[in-house]
Amino acid sequence: MEACGELSPPPRTLLGPGPSNVHPRVLRALSTPLVGHLDPEFIRLMEETKALLRFVFQTSNPLTLPISGTGSAGMETCFVNMVEPGDEVVIGVNGVFGTRMVDVVQRCGGTPVIMEAPWGAVFSPDDIRAALKRCTRPKLVAIVNAETSTGAWQPLVDVAPLVHEAGALFLVDAVTSLGGCPLKIDAWQIDVCYSGTQKCLSCPPGLSPVTFSPAAQEVIRNRKHKVQSWYLDLSLLEQYWGEERVYHHTAPISMNYALREALRLVSEEGLAARFRRHEDNHLALAAGLNALGMRLVAQEGARLWMLNSVAIPDGIDDATVRKHLLAEYNIEIGAGLGVFAGKVWRIGLMGESSTRSNVLLVLSALEAVLQQNGHACAAGAGVSAAQEVYATRESRARLNQHEAR
Amino acid sequence: MEACGELSPPPRTLLGPGPSNVHPRVLRALSTPLVGHLDPEFIRLMEETKALLRFVFQTSNPLTLPISGTGSAGMETCFVNMVEPGDEVVIGVNGVFGTRMVDVVQRCGGTPVIMEAPWGAVFSPDDIRAALKRCTRPKLVAIVNAETSTGAWQPLVDVAPLVHEAGALFLVDAVTSLGGCPLKIDAWQIDVCYSGTQKCLSCPPGLSPVTFSPAAQEVIRNRKHKVQSWYLDLSLLEQYWGEERVYHHTAPISMNYALREALRLVSEEGLAARFRRHEDNHLALAAGLNALGMRLVAQEGARLWMLNSVAIPDGIDDATVRKHLLAEYNIEIGAGLGVFAGKVWRIGLMGESSTRSNVLLVLSALEAVLQQNGHACAAGAGVSAAQEVYATRESRARLNQHEAR
Repeated sequence: MEACGELSPPPRTLLGPGPSNVHPRVLRALSTPLVGHLDPEFIRLMEETKALLRFVFQTSNPLTLPISGTGSAGMETCFVNMVEPGDEVVIGVNGVFGTRMVDVVQRCGGTPVIMEAPWGAVFSPDDIRAALKRCTRPKLVAIVNAETSTGAWQPLVDVAPLVHEAGALFLVDAVTSLGGCPLKIDAWQIDVCYSGTQKCLSCPPGLSPVTFSPAAQEVIRNRKHKVQSWYLDLSLLEQYWGEERVYHHTAPISMNYALREALRLVSEEGLAARFRRHEDNHLALAAGLNALGMRLVAQEGARLWMLNSVAIPDGIDDATVRKHLLAEYNIEIGAGLGVFAGKVWRIGLMGESSTRSNVLLVLSALEAVLQQNGHACAAGAGVSAAQEVYATRESRARLNQHEAR
Repeated sequence: MEACGELSPPPRTLLGPGPSNVHPRVLRALSTPLVGHLDPEFIRLMEETKALLRFVFQTSNPLTLPISGTGSAGMETCFVNMVEPGDEVVIGVNGVFGTRMVDVVQRCGGTPVIMEAPWGAVFSPDDIRAALKRCTRPKLVAIVNAETSTGAWQPLVDVAPLVHEAGALFLVDAVTSLGGCPLKIDAWQIDVCYSGTQKCLSCPPGLSPVTFSPAAQEVIRNRKHKVQSWYLDLSLLEQYWGEERVYHHTAPISMNYALREALRLVSEEGLAARFRRHEDNHLALAAGLNALGMRLVAQEGARLWMLNSVAIPDGIDDATVRKHLLAEYNIEIGAGLGVFAGKVWRIGLMGESSTRSNVLLVLSALEAVLQQNGHACAAGAGVSAAQEVYATRESRARLNQHEAR
């Protein structure tokens, strides 16, 4: 066996579609010596993690837990438990992750009813009404809250009543939104939701928080067929994460340490402050990109705060710029996926990565690299535009504070 | 949200069925800041990890990688990729994990052909021949190498020819054996194998190393139906872990850092030395338990080195003793599962946990706790018997060394 050297990865600034940068406290939690997965101390920690997850999901759902796999395992968990052969599932497809939902539902033997929108666009209540009309007996309506492949932000507030009226349950992909923008599971009557740890929660990838409403749990209890996945079968998982503590699989102890610490950081910051931070940094970055002569590709008024998809300027080579950013600035930004491959960059400002410093850094670096590659833009234009946004946002915040007195 | 305190788990000595204690170098690797899952540095690390896994699996199989889930996800990966509806699968059932295989195969629509043995016993070549005779057209023979629920060590050396002669492929559960006792994928002609990270590799739980022979890959390529799990579909996973580097899911970066470091430690120690260490400590523990008046429950001649299932002495309460060991000595040992619940303890000596110090510690602590609970045993008998084994083994090793000169 040829010797492998010391682990010594470069110190990246992670501004892609996730993973985001991880807080030192979370890294320290990861390095904590392990206890067993049935240790009373681990069981206490599981309870704390469930409570913290309920807090970020804004829910009182008892069935709220981290699945022992990444966000995609969370997606699969939700569908394999909710869908039985022949079930109709309305799926919003406007990017990679809606497309993936269709694939997963087909593998469960379900019948996808595809509701399409252009990449970068979102669905209106009318779109959803029309899709439901095409169904015989819809079981689920599944929609992506934050389409990580396009940067589109799907509004969810008014969707559930339409879905419930049609006798279906409402499933939301919140992989990229959770912890970065408002998401209210109970208030918005979302029945099934999954997320990932490596986006706005700024925990390493490896777990997928999920939550199920009592109505969704009822559907699971009344299934006719066994869930096709043993590993993701919630009727077994809830016995381990619930009061019975029946051994199912060996929980990823270290990752659960990390998730708990990441959630503690979210709760210390407070949801409102955290969302505000994501909004501020998005607005500043968007202004800066605009000043550098670039445009965001997601539909106006529906642009995510944590993931900014920007059109690559004419004449600029995608990979060349990303390579320069990585090699010369240690900055990772994301490539485009699917129809956006080679045409779009995805600049993430998620969790710990969403900082003013990172906005200024990526704008400065992008400006330099773009100029090197022949794209004309005024020196310092991006950074100035961003700083202006911060100044305005701060004075407005001070004004608001003043008026609230 | 009620505040959760600092993460501060007690410093346990992990002598249960896994997780085992983790080396400080692996904990440090876990706490390394992250790079992205498509970063050239992570891709280099993926290649190193595959090479290290091939080394511990003793294979040249190109399709060798860690699945992004625990050992149970590895089990599911192997079956969902290999089995199609109606396929006959011979499964050895002599404990919890064979039983679980049956459940998983049924969820894939396969037809299990159950080959049974009492808990603690292993299968003979004749058992396997007889089971194969009951099949019409067996696709797979699946067997557990190290039954973690019983401590039985299934011999594998002569199995593959029987299996291949019947036109089937050979699948092995090596969750608990990999890295603790000889396992030669290529020499023993094993076609499909999965393991876990938290046993004899002494990495935290969260990944499952798997390996597939070219013949197994061929079966996957010729499938009639899509794999029912998107997350575990090897035709997609091999595009990410292979040369194409097509994005599938976001790999658990930190866990992969940890696995690589744990595998480096295995390669630095060397397989032969590592196995010898596991054997020595098992023999010493077994002698010590025997001297304390306890007997191992696995079939004689087929007892695992890394997992010792011992009958709980008459009149002794299972949970009371385990609680004392945990509360007073910070030692975790495992409870019995299934038919062994309340009747058996499982004492693991896996990876970093397999040390002379831990053997002496657990024997001393057990003696004290058993005596407190009314079990008569001579003072110091367990530790003395263990020390005697170490002395004999050492003198024999010195003799061997001498003769080899």
